[in-house]
Amino acid sequence: MSAIAEVAETLTRLRSEVAQLHAHLPAYGLVVWTAGNVSARVPGHELIVIKPSGVAYDELTPANMVVCDLDGRVVDGEHAPSSDTEAQAYVYREMPHVGGVVHTHSPYAVAWAARGESIPCVTTMCADEFGGPIPVGPFAIIGDDSIGRGIVETLRDSRSPAVLMQNHGVFTIGPTAKAAVKAAVMCEDVARTVHLARQLGEPIPIEQTYIDRLFDRYQNVYGQR
Amino acid sequence: MSAIAEVAETLTRLRSEVAQLHAHLPAYGLVVWTAGNVSARVPGHELIVIKPSGVAYDELTPANMVVCDLDGRVVDGEHAPSSDTEAQAYVYREMPHVGGVVHTHSPYAVAWAARGESIPCVTTMCADEFGGPIPVGPFAIIGDDSIGRGIVETLRDSRSPAVLMQNHGVFTIGPTAKAAVKAAVMCEDVARTVHLARQLGEPIPIEQTYIDRLFDRYQNVYGQR
Amino acid sequence: MSAIAEVAETLTRLRSEVAQLHAHLPAYGLVVWTAGNVSARVPGHELIVIKPSGVAYDELTPANMVVCDLDGRVVDGEHAPSSDTEAQAYVYREMPHVGGVVHTHSPYAVAWAARGESIPCVTTMCADEFGGPIPVGPFAIIGDDSIGRGIVETLRDSRSPAVLMQNHGVFTIGPTAKAAVKAAVMCEDVARTVHLARQLGEPIPIEQTYIDRLFDRYQNVYGQR
Amino acid sequence: MSAIAEVAETLTRLRSEVAQLHAHLPAYGLVVWTAGNVSARVPGHELIVIKPSGVAYDELTPANMVVCDLDGRVVDGEHAPSSDTEAQAYVYREMPHVGGVVHTHSPYAVAWAARGESIPCVTTMCADEFGGPIPVGPFAIIGDDSIGRGIVETLRDSRSPAVLMQNHGVFTIGPTAKAAVKAAVMCEDVARTVHLARQLGEPIPIEQTYIDRLFDRYQNVYGQR
Repeated sequence: MSAIAEVAETLTRLRSEVAQLHAHLPAYGLVVWTAGNVSARVPGHELIVIKPSGVAYDELTPANMVVCDLDGRVVDGEHAPSSDTEAQAYVYREMPHVGGVVHTHSPYAVAWAARGESIPCVTTMCADEFGGPIPVGPFAIIGDDSIGRGIVETLRDSRSPAVLMQNHGVFTIGPTAKAAVKAAVMCEDVARTVHLARQLGEPIPIEQTYIDRLFDRYQNVYGQR
Repeated sequence: MSAIAEVAETLTRLRSEVAQLHAHLPAYGLVVWTAGNVSARVPGHELIVIKPSGVAYDELTPANMVVCDLDGRVVDGEHAPSSDTEAQAYVYREMPHVGGVVHTHSPYAVAWAARGESIPCVTTMCADEFGGPIPVGPFAIIGDDSIGRGIVETLRDSRSPAVLMQNHGVFTIGPTAKAAVKAAVMCEDVARTVHLARQLGEPIPIEQTYIDRLFDRYQNVYGQR
Repeated sequence: MSAIAEVAETLTRLRSEVAQLHAHLPAYGLVVWTAGNVSARVPGHELIVIKPSGVAYDELTPANMVVCDLDGRVVDGEHAPSSDTEAQAYVYREMPHVGGVVHTHSPYAVAWAARGESIPCVTTMCADEFGGPIPVGPFAIIGDDSIGRGIVETLRDSRSPAVLMQNHGVFTIGPTAKAAVKAAVMCEDVARTVHLARQLGEPIPIEQTYIDRLFDRYQNVYGQR
Repeated sequence: MSAIAEVAETLTRLRSEVAQLHAHLPAYGLVVWTAGNVSARVPGHELIVIKPSGVAYDELTPANMVVCDLDGRVVDGEHAPSSDTEAQAYVYREMPHVGGVVHTHSPYAVAWAARGESIPCVTTMCADEFGGPIPVGPFAIIGDDSIGRGIVETLRDSRSPAVLMQNHGVFTIGPTAKAAVKAAVMCEDVARTVHLARQLGEPIPIEQTYIDRLFDRYQNVYGQR
């Protein structure tokens, strides 16, 4: 197959995959109306596939996904891309192992973010998926590199695939867009469970050695090989 | 097309649009049973299209929507109009830029309203859509102009398209009925997130200058042109 | 039509109606698994139609509804009736204007019931439907008349169609089974909203004169004539 | 029928039953993504049928269920079994009356588990199904017998079919897999209701004698014979 035919085929597959993955966000209550988005890197190319800006979840199709370069400029697509494209493009530029990024305003996670508090690792599910607390990133607003930088600086030295951007929302990363969606779903679940636990007292901490063992096992043994 | 044919066509379109927009209210958990309603102005006419009183959401059709004048009198339709028709007609009379009004009893927003507290602007989503705190209006009951006046007096000098009427519920306005529905959905999302944040501490305020920039961008750049 | 044909026709209609009304209970989150039930009086007869005991909501059909007399004995039907049949039969015997009874374990309402607290009337929706606070009834357990007596003694002199039975759940009454379902839906909505309001401070009371006016209007003007 | 044909037929039936029972877990909000699982004992054989590890709920079919022996080794099936298989196999070995086991991370129950607190028996539903408080088991992590031992040691002398494993999640047992699913659903409902009750005060205790009578009646009279 020619190189051009190959990238065309990859884009067709990723447009479809990214469009479909969006359905998890409203289904799990992570977004309302048109907020939030999913993107995926086009492997081997300086390109990403991302949600169009301000389009309703039930109107997303492979055709209205937008292909951008890693500076956030539209390369293919008839719609304006997500207003988070620049932030996500920054993440893809700086973190070459990242294959997918998700952004949500899921309510329990944003509650922690509004107080600028990280979520302590007090459930085995949090140890499994996040390998420790879910960290908070800086306050940063749309319009320049500051959101992207905040994400990268917070996650670079963390095992967590999720960051709570202060007063704003959740960004998650993963080797694939699906893995980033999973991290967004689990981030809200952990945020809610620990919120509920703290409402009536203090959760019992989990020792670091157990957190390490749980994280290692979940990353390397859980699931199908 | 004759003027009469034109208004008939517009009414047909708006009856359908308003009937369909109602589906968002139960889907987002903003109403139970027959509570709440959506209305739309008939552009260029002293008319509105509104929900019939006390009819279940899954029984709403274009045919049972009610057309009223701006004094709340039925002009076309076989059902009694929403008991909020007078309040909404007042809003349409006094605020010519309003094309749609929505009323809900969404639970987190009503919790703020029952305490008579406005919702502080501590998330970027609140800055985006409401441009500041979501304000509280006076206690007012059905039967005269007092609800309508309370809405107009509260929203006239606010950037917020939503008001929490004390002990009662939410009224939102917009250039279209769809925009008012969106504001109602986001109002509950913000009410819930800030409620959750406050349960475990104090949310971090967002500086006014950032609120202004976020509001400006969301109103003017976000979405498709 | 003969008297026998008439009662047969009425039973056919009520079996279908009661079976269908049950769908609102899980849809509004008022029950889990097989808990809760709806019943209706057979007008002009000493009979009621009620849910079979321990049958899942998605398996309810007109055919498996159970017809009992007002002492709770099965008159028609192949299943054992709801374990709340005796309590409900007592209510029908003592309150001749009651045409329907509903029982749920809806979570926010049961939270008030577990503390033995009535729900204060601090929202206009509560004034509309309940005409004042939602009262608490005594602790009473299955096995004799005590639940039925507790319901009747609490509701006899109240405008509220709902009672929170201490440590147990909600019973609602109405002129029809549908009206009792509506009261159960609104009871949970009010219980949740006032719970949320109280979590972050004190709700503002509504003056009795306004409660009276709201109740009067909602009972006599709201809806279709 | 030959013994081999008989076990084959039983496995076909249980694969289908266990696959279908899983649908209750996401429907009741007890799990997210691929977390949680249901298993059933193969009556008369040292075998269990269990969920494959890390497979999404909407992809579960009779064919991808896994058959294991009571040491957790795969006997039939093309997938790796749930990472909780060893814990569940331990329960089946030690508790011969157990026919089904369910594991969830349902949020309100995990909130109690994260604080290491048992849920007090303050609702009649809790008395009915659990016969007393829902107990907490020890902190234990995947990798040896410790989870299984913790479940068995906690439930052996309890009337409760549910245990909250500290910092982790819920395990329920029952004579059948369906009964264990029911216990998991009711455990979360009780955990939520009592959480809500405690947020605004102290629930009223239920006397032991009433708990005993409710438990006895629900176990022996409720439902169809």
